[in-house]
Amino acid sequence: MFKPYFKAKGGPPPLSVTCQRTARLEEVDALGIVWHGRYPSFLEDGREEMGRRFGLSYGEFKAAGAVLPIRSLTLDYLLPLRYREEFVVETTLHWHEAARLNMEYCLRNAGGQVTTRGCSVQMMVDLSGTLLLEAPAFYREFQRRWREGRLSPCGC
Amino acid sequence: MFKPYFKAKGGPPPLSVTCQRTARLEEVDALGIVWHGRYPSFLEDGREEMGRRFGLSYGEFKAAGAVLPIRSLTLDYLLPLRYREEFVVETTLHWHEAARLNMEYCLRNAGGQVTTRGCSVQMMVDLSGTLLLEAPAFYREFQRRWREGRLSPCGC
Amino acid sequence: MFKPYFKAKGGPPPLSVTCQRTARLEEVDALGIVWHGRYPSFLEDGREEMGRRFGLSYGEFKAAGAVLPIRSLTLDYLLPLRYREEFVVETTLHWHEAARLNMEYCLRNAGGQVTTRGCSVQMMVDLSGTLLLEAPAFYREFQRRWREGRLSPCGC
Amino acid sequence: MFKPYFKAKGGPPPLSVTCQRTARLEEVDALGIVWHGRYPSFLEDGREEMGRRFGLSYGEFKAAGAVLPIRSLTLDYLLPLRYREEFVVETTLHWHEAARLNMEYCLRNAGGQVTTRGCSVQMMVDLSGTLLLEAPAFYREFQRRWREGRLSPCGC
Repeated sequence: MFKPYFKAKGGPPPLSVTCQRTARLEEVDALGIVWHGRYPSFLEDGREEMGRRFGLSYGEFKAAGAVLPIRSLTLDYLLPLRYREEFVVETTLHWHEAARLNMEYCLRNAGGQVTTRGCSVQMMVDLSGTLLLEAPAFYREFQRRWREGRLSPCGC
Repeated sequence: MFKPYFKAKGGPPPLSVTCQRTARLEEVDALGIVWHGRYPSFLEDGREEMGRRFGLSYGEFKAAGAVLPIRSLTLDYLLPLRYREEFVVETTLHWHEAARLNMEYCLRNAGGQVTTRGCSVQMMVDLSGTLLLEAPAFYREFQRRWREGRLSPCGC
Repeated sequence: MFKPYFKAKGGPPPLSVTCQRTARLEEVDALGIVWHGRYPSFLEDGREEMGRRFGLSYGEFKAAGAVLPIRSLTLDYLLPLRYREEFVVETTLHWHEAARLNMEYCLRNAGGQVTTRGCSVQMMVDLSGTLLLEAPAFYREFQRRWREGRLSPCGC
Repeated sequence: MFKPYFKAKGGPPPLSVTCQRTARLEEVDALGIVWHGRYPSFLEDGREEMGRRFGLSYGEFKAAGAVLPIRSLTLDYLLPLRYREEFVVETTLHWHEAARLNMEYCLRNAGGQVTTRGCSVQMMVDLSGTLLLEAPAFYREFQRRWREGRLSPCGC
């Protein structure tokens, strides 16, 4: 029903996690709806959850000498969110061979309607900012287990 | 050199305005660079400037019974910005027949390098949130002058 | 041990609630600690929790024709908070006869150390911004139950 | 007319700078007024201006091995600010012998009315977070010129 943000490249099925959020007073604008510029923060929550569940946190990358700057971000706003409205952020990591993270996001309100969709691309760079030609060893090991279908949500 | 965000549709040439900004302490993250989620705020500055220069502010739309929710937003991050770094936001309004605003953004640092590019689509809706089939009269008059090449930067 | 923000005025004991929060990536500055200007957001969480537990939400006040602008805010920063650090916000409502809310806040890190203290004063005003001489009926009823020691945390 | 935040201690007269700001769309809440939690950002602008005018920027302190965490912040909200409203931030540095910065803030709207007042205390600490017993040499030199009445707004 929705256009895909990333084309499948023959890898294993994508990995998804969800987290819950409530629209906060300070996130709402004069029209009474969440200001569009707050949503990067909601996607950040999704990435955090992805990191926690699969051992891919910023801390783990940093320990391996890598950081993950956002290289592109897209947001499609379908329905507004209002003050105190609860919503779910579903975050999906799509397979990619290279040292990058392609993620897709889908926000749903309490009625299950998709309110917002989006995607982000992060490149792995070393601490001096140089693009990594190869992902850190721990991530390549993660990719191996993913490809072999041996990933459970706890990342074991 | 960069991919265009919007395809030309045979209308008049796009309109551009620029404004200046400085990266603020609170906009910088633990890596010492502006957090990617602050950039919607920089684009908002660009839209404000566009509104001021051409008589297209939120206030003018509201007086005509219309609001302009963001329907999509894309950001491409090429180079980081750092604390106190000055940059220019160039905002370009592309022609579109319908009741929508297609804008493109280009941020350049003091050395003239493009640090960030982006685009946004806004739909005109009435105060109850229904899509307008036709733009407010003042905007159609603005379009007429634009098409006839009679627009100066002050919008007269 | 800490100086009190409000003087006891002979009313019933104050009411306290707690909520949990984690320091988010975007809240941290270039020094790696939560930027001081993010803390009003943490206190807002505390007020929300207070409203939820005792039936004193902004929605309930608004239904009674009242809003609750902040008139003063004080924050004392004792220890920093870092990215992903969990902390508890304890929010305490102090008794006051007038149409105002005097709240005190205490943030504690996972080790139980007090990292931050603060207080806020909110005045009850009507929708046109005029100070209310008397709190809305539902709040006076809440005060009556509070004074009589008949409040349970769920506000019944 | 207003209560002083800091008591005079016999030093030279305080130093004041002003800067201009406009309330931004994203700073306004559902009531159409600037959310109280945005004001720390306005005070930060005031401190930046103070730093620029007198050679007291964060960069200059950092070069001297010092950072300036906020230890306390107080805000008094007298009148609201609205979307696109212009206001002036007057920032005043009060004399203090110790390695700390005591600043006071006064925001005025276009009509000259005081909308907001506040103060902050910053302690000078070294890069490991230990309180400095003595301010860096460049700051003591600044204090000497201040005491001797030899400071002009450019800090020469």
